[in-house]
Amino acid sequence: MNEIDATEWGVWRKFYAMRRQLDRALEDQLQRDAQISGPDYEILLALFDAPERRLRSRELAEQTGWEKSRISHQVTRMVSRGLVERSECPDDLRGTWISPTRDGLRAVLGAMREHSATIRRLFFDVLTDEELATLGTASERVLEAIDSTNSPSEGGELEAAG
Amino acid sequence: MNEIDATEWGVWRKFYAMRRQLDRALEDQLQRDAQISGPDYEILLALFDAPERRLRSRELAEQTGWEKSRISHQVTRMVSRGLVERSECPDDLRGTWISPTRDGLRAVLGAMREHSATIRRLFFDVLTDEELATLGTASERVLEAIDSTNSPSEGGELEAAG
Repeated sequence: MNEIDATEWGVWRKFYAMRRQLDRALEDQLQRDAQISGPDYEILLALFDAPERRLRSRELAEQTGWEKSRISHQVTRMVSRGLVERSECPDDLRGTWISPTRDGLRAVLGAMREHSATIRRLFFDVLTDEELATLGTASERVLEAIDSTNSPSEGGELEAAG
Repeated sequence: MNEIDATEWGVWRKFYAMRRQLDRALEDQLQRDAQISGPDYEILLALFDAPERRLRSRELAEQTGWEKSRISHQVTRMVSRGLVERSECPDDLRGTWISPTRDGLRAVLGAMREHSATIRRLFFDVLTDEELATLGTASERVLEAIDSTNSPSEGGELEAAG
């Protein structure tokens, strides 16, 4: 294996800093506009987009790509803050539904417009069409490389199910 | 403001999934090779690269881009796990030094080679030179947009100091 050279590390560091600061800018926006965190928003948006606005833990794990234990902790915190609620499905033994409360819906709706505006301002408005196309294909290629590392068996069950 | 169209959302989702799965693949590698988390590695690497292998909290915050409270919690956890230690600097009132323990150094050295190999395999090996160059300039442009949003005054003190 060749070493990674200085130019490559330079790109990696810039790319890494960009990812981190973009996440942080989006987190700040969510906190400011809806008093919710990035993970709160991710859960609420998945529920908002779901048929009948409800999902089981397993489906939330598939949609978000998180571990099931992280879903469980996050949902418990959001229940205690009144953003989502759990309910049993009587004719189905496969588990509990999770759905947004009225406050949770209000939060996600309050955040969505400004969230999109922030993504547009910091990302789409500053990149050319060619750069976006390159970013899309580069992302696909990296995802394929990760996927082929994970399959055939090694801990890639969430990707395979998603 | 224009709405974000379906093609743009497609790129955003792919880019978002790539960032998340890349982070996860790197976290898995660190756990497997050195039994440390991504945040552990980030702190240990910053200390390893520092003059005399020690930094103050404030310097760690600048290097990592984290909030000071997050640094403090993370360092406390790492002290209790024997990866870093705190020490007072007698002739300097500006705070406490944080440095890696022998176990912390062993962990970061054990993880570094395979960490680089993973980054090479999942990122550099699958992208062309043109794509890397585009990724570099695109990252710079996004960072500038975030920077100009944060300055002149609004909560951008870490970026300004970094």
